[in-house]
Amino acid sequence: MNFASDTSAPAHPRVLEALADANCGMEASYGGDSVTASLRPLLEAAFETADFDYWMTASGTASNALALACLCPSTGAVLCHEEAHIERDERGAPEFFSGGGKLRLLKGFGARIDREALEAALAANNPAFVHETPAHALSLTNLTECGTAYRAADVALYARLAKEKGLWVHLDGARLGNALLSTRSSAADMTWRAGVDVLSFGLTKTGAFGCELILLFGRARTKFAELKVRAKRSGHMPAKMRFIAAQARAMLEDGLWLELAAEANARSGELADAFIGAGFELAYPVDGNEVFAYLPEEVAARLQAAGAKFYPWPGGCYRFVCSWNTPAADIEALAAAL
Amino acid sequence: MNFASDTSAPAHPRVLEALADANCGMEASYGGDSVTASLRPLLEAAFETADFDYWMTASGTASNALALACLCPSTGAVLCHEEAHIERDERGAPEFFSGGGKLRLLKGFGARIDREALEAALAANNPAFVHETPAHALSLTNLTECGTAYRAADVALYARLAKEKGLWVHLDGARLGNALLSTRSSAADMTWRAGVDVLSFGLTKTGAFGCELILLFGRARTKFAELKVRAKRSGHMPAKMRFIAAQARAMLEDGLWLELAAEANARSGELADAFIGAGFELAYPVDGNEVFAYLPEEVAARLQAAGAKFYPWPGGCYRFVCSWNTPAADIEALAAAL
Amino acid sequence: MNFASDTSAPAHPRVLEALADANCGMEASYGGDSVTASLRPLLEAAFETADFDYWMTASGTASNALALACLCPSTGAVLCHEEAHIERDERGAPEFFSGGGKLRLLKGFGARIDREALEAALAANNPAFVHETPAHALSLTNLTECGTAYRAADVALYARLAKEKGLWVHLDGARLGNALLSTRSSAADMTWRAGVDVLSFGLTKTGAFGCELILLFGRARTKFAELKVRAKRSGHMPAKMRFIAAQARAMLEDGLWLELAAEANARSGELADAFIGAGFELAYPVDGNEVFAYLPEEVAARLQAAGAKFYPWPGGCYRFVCSWNTPAADIEALAAAL
Amino acid sequence: MNFASDTSAPAHPRVLEALADANCGMEASYGGDSVTASLRPLLEAAFETADFDYWMTASGTASNALALACLCPSTGAVLCHEEAHIERDERGAPEFFSGGGKLRLLKGFGARIDREALEAALAANNPAFVHETPAHALSLTNLTECGTAYRAADVALYARLAKEKGLWVHLDGARLGNALLSTRSSAADMTWRAGVDVLSFGLTKTGAFGCELILLFGRARTKFAELKVRAKRSGHMPAKMRFIAAQARAMLEDGLWLELAAEANARSGELADAFIGAGFELAYPVDGNEVFAYLPEEVAARLQAAGAKFYPWPGGCYRFVCSWNTPAADIEALAAAL
Repeated sequence: MNFASDTSAPAHPRVLEALADANCGMEASYGGDSVTASLRPLLEAAFETADFDYWMTASGTASNALALACLCPSTGAVLCHEEAHIERDERGAPEFFSGGGKLRLLKGFGARIDREALEAALAANNPAFVHETPAHALSLTNLTECGTAYRAADVALYARLAKEKGLWVHLDGARLGNALLSTRSSAADMTWRAGVDVLSFGLTKTGAFGCELILLFGRARTKFAELKVRAKRSGHMPAKMRFIAAQARAMLEDGLWLELAAEANARSGELADAFIGAGFELAYPVDGNEVFAYLPEEVAARLQAAGAKFYPWPGGCYRFVCSWNTPAADIEALAAAL
Repeated sequence: MNFASDTSAPAHPRVLEALADANCGMEASYGGDSVTASLRPLLEAAFETADFDYWMTASGTASNALALACLCPSTGAVLCHEEAHIERDERGAPEFFSGGGKLRLLKGFGARIDREALEAALAANNPAFVHETPAHALSLTNLTECGTAYRAADVALYARLAKEKGLWVHLDGARLGNALLSTRSSAADMTWRAGVDVLSFGLTKTGAFGCELILLFGRARTKFAELKVRAKRSGHMPAKMRFIAAQARAMLEDGLWLELAAEANARSGELADAFIGAGFELAYPVDGNEVFAYLPEEVAARLQAAGAKFYPWPGGCYRFVCSWNTPAADIEALAAAL
Repeated sequence: MNFASDTSAPAHPRVLEALADANCGMEASYGGDSVTASLRPLLEAAFETADFDYWMTASGTASNALALACLCPSTGAVLCHEEAHIERDERGAPEFFSGGGKLRLLKGFGARIDREALEAALAANNPAFVHETPAHALSLTNLTECGTAYRAADVALYARLAKEKGLWVHLDGARLGNALLSTRSSAADMTWRAGVDVLSFGLTKTGAFGCELILLFGRARTKFAELKVRAKRSGHMPAKMRFIAAQARAMLEDGLWLELAAEANARSGELADAFIGAGFELAYPVDGNEVFAYLPEEVAARLQAAGAKFYPWPGGCYRFVCSWNTPAADIEALAAAL
Repeated sequence: MNFASDTSAPAHPRVLEALADANCGMEASYGGDSVTASLRPLLEAAFETADFDYWMTASGTASNALALACLCPSTGAVLCHEEAHIERDERGAPEFFSGGGKLRLLKGFGARIDREALEAALAANNPAFVHETPAHALSLTNLTECGTAYRAADVALYARLAKEKGLWVHLDGARLGNALLSTRSSAADMTWRAGVDVLSFGLTKTGAFGCELILLFGRARTKFAELKVRAKRSGHMPAKMRFIAAQARAMLEDGLWLELAAEANARSGELADAFIGAGFELAYPVDGNEVFAYLPEEVAARLQAAGAKFYPWPGGCYRFVCSWNTPAADIEALAAAL
């Protein structure tokens, strides 16, 4: 009963197989290999466009920070939710990679930015005023850090507002598949068609070892050379890139990433039902593979005693995360322990 | 006949097996897993000491830059050879990770720092003089970028000189095994016993997918907390760390890393013999898995026409790199083409 | 009727005289001059202690950023009010000088941090948790950006709370004199006796050309060498330092700085009375030389038409700043225009 | 007999007078004042063009670093002489302001870059190769750190070579006037007409308190907004800018800066004659206000005993600097002591 994190799960067997397949013969280094090249048609199919460039890292923090550093100069700011992973859980990586840029924090229930908060921040943004740090980018997270989702229309609205003020739009999609499924959106609708310029497309939490794509769409492709330079400079241009690429190939082929996200979402749905059925309140809607439940301390202790792993969360609730690998039996066991 | 780079080689099958072994069950994230913990006794055996801390990244550039950033503040400098990988091939990673520190470049044949150059730099080092940037660390590379080796006694001498002036000592050991074998040194003698404080212990070029250990010895262990913070902040604390650790385990168990380095060295020796036998001059002694040969342009062209891959090198020679996976037949084919 | 800023005022004639006095003969460069040295007894008298080191810059932004960079590493954060000058008006200088540190923003009326907000931030501070950026320093501003003052007891309380959690305490005293006078505190009571480690002691707004002292008290003196290095590196070690020092000397001799602050405070008091007398509400208590008044737009327009200069302020009020040079007649003229 | 540095000299009386003149009435802050605006026609006359933007700081280090940070990204390098002030005497300011850019050091006699060294560096520059750090700018110093001058034709040649490879050209003119006089060049011929994009135009060493202009010519004017942002962020946008501007006005009016540079050059010429007359060798041609003489230790000691101040210099000689304020009698006294 390990609900601590979807990063505690192993990789899916097909990911391991792809690694083994890639592990033969000599290949060019630093992303010049045939496996990396083979991702293009798969990504074109997944995103219904050919107008993108892509890079890979083994770290979601790196992908976010590299993406933002290309969009926001050291003298600028990024708008994000005050509970965003880039603010809370990346130890200042955006500030480091951008050379001292700022995050400007916006409020909103369930880690979704309030429209009013966004509009106020955009209205106050004045790049011509030298004393203040202007925003150059908006960063959204979908699935959010509270397990809620923005619908594609929400992303499109926010992206439009941001772009009217000249900002770039970044989407942290560490759990993109989970959000796509619950909102019944296509990857294209949620990203470039909604106005997203740069996507951190995470596959690690979904079921890889460590594989996070960065996709630059349309006009953002002008940043591709800079992205590679920054990747190199920060140690995110691994010599044997094919082994990251192999993971992406496994996940993209036959839509494995969505299949695995669906499994995780299903478990979370069952888990949410278990909490509600037992009379406990959820802190946020369950739009993906995370459930935040308000539990009395003794209940939490009882679950832990029964072997369940999960974290207390700011705001007084507890976080339970399901992965592709969470057994249905674990949900039943937890429900029983409740 | 691919002599382009040892990073073009695949991983050794036992590395893949270790990855498969690690890929089961739930594990704590971010280095808290059992595989990472299991490396300690293996490292203790390899380095004949328990007085160290360790971290891992998937990138040699990251390992070097993280190590140096812990040893050198943003207002300081690192002494290194002018052909050092950290100067030539890491796109300013040390400067980026340290927040604007400098590399001070020293000369010497075959990418080994001249003793006189080192002594002159140390004599001129004046941390009390606010206008100049003082050196805080000496970084050596062994095997060097020209395929030559420092003997353990050389490292010990240079480390002593550096430490007399208060500098830390870093060793870039991207090809450490290759140097240990040719100098018939133990890992302990070449590193902490010689006065090395921090070691970048590379296993990728030796035969892993992407696995680079950072070892902090003795007094440098005071930097371990900072190292982890910097790793986190730069995207080098992967969530599923066990998959990097598994590679290290495979390489350390039964001394596989030295076995593979020995294979690569053997091929390089044969390759050197082939060049010499054919009447060509070598640019540097062959102390590891790299051979630098002066070849007339038509000879180089002939080899390329025969299917050999290798790079021209600054100074007018050509670089040929062997790996654990270089077939003896490739050497014979090259010799025939010569 | 220029109430735009106290930085719009000229320097006091005695400051100019001191500059002329300093302008003879040869002097050592970079702060080694006799004028800089002559400040020590004056500062000892002003602060009733000899346990400090000092540096000077011509810029308040630089003084704050240099001070904070010595207290907070690139991987840490500084707690400050969300309306603090370091957050709002310094274009990311703290982030730049610290190499990517963060500001963590706290709330409170009138730009004074709420005790509850501070306690909550301190309670949540966990330097051992690698994912989050821990606070290393608390930065207070006195006089605050809303013209209110912390009493010395407030500063002492907040400093004690911060220090219990291992934080350093910085005080932005760009308008220190104004706050000392309204709270009837000594400079010592408001700073080192209250637990302030580093003080940005501003004299520019008070009546110099450009002269901002940085004082390191007690334990913070261990940072003095680093402070000078950072000053040099950022262009804040001017060759002819004596001309900044001469300004400080003029301001410190015979307590000119407090005399001038008293003048400015007196004008602000009269101005506040004028607004209240005319039936307008003030946004904040007037504890120094700044008055924030709620005015109907037509009244603001009328004042501007009468020749008054002042700025609209976030929150819907208008800011009026008095300086040592504000004529009493200007207050009368504004009152008449009201 | 103080030959330690031209920064040990006081400011010229007309600079002080200009400061007094500027010290009346209210003025807009942060460079919006009338004194700053009044510099434009003076600069237009001095540089025979209107196609420039300008900013001021009180520090030559800041001016150089701000200029270079606008020309070279954090991922790039600047070519300069290995004895350049930006490398030797600014404690890593270029690296700090650029966010981790590199200086690539070139050789040449007398601190003038060798043409061959420049051509080799330019030939090797490959911005498309992600592993190496490409140069984005060439920085020349005139008068050089060894007191030699580039002729305008030299600057024009080097600028042309650099621009053919896409580099920007920066000129560190901390002692520009001294070089213009000895080479009988106009300011225009030595700067924008020669292809210089950005000039650090120093007036402090010439006779101001602390006044260093940054001039962006032609195409470099596109960087003006960024320059101001970086100046603000680094504490180089002083609130009462008019007091820096007043210094520039005094120096530019009636060509005072060239008059003072001529005085300093004249003294240096006499000093050089004194050394040669006494049978001592000079290390470099004397093209400005600095003399580098090889002296036996006992002679140096005798001069010091006679009250002369000067510094030993790398390379085994001694540096003697004259300023506008060096009395002719000091030269005679030194000659007598020789």
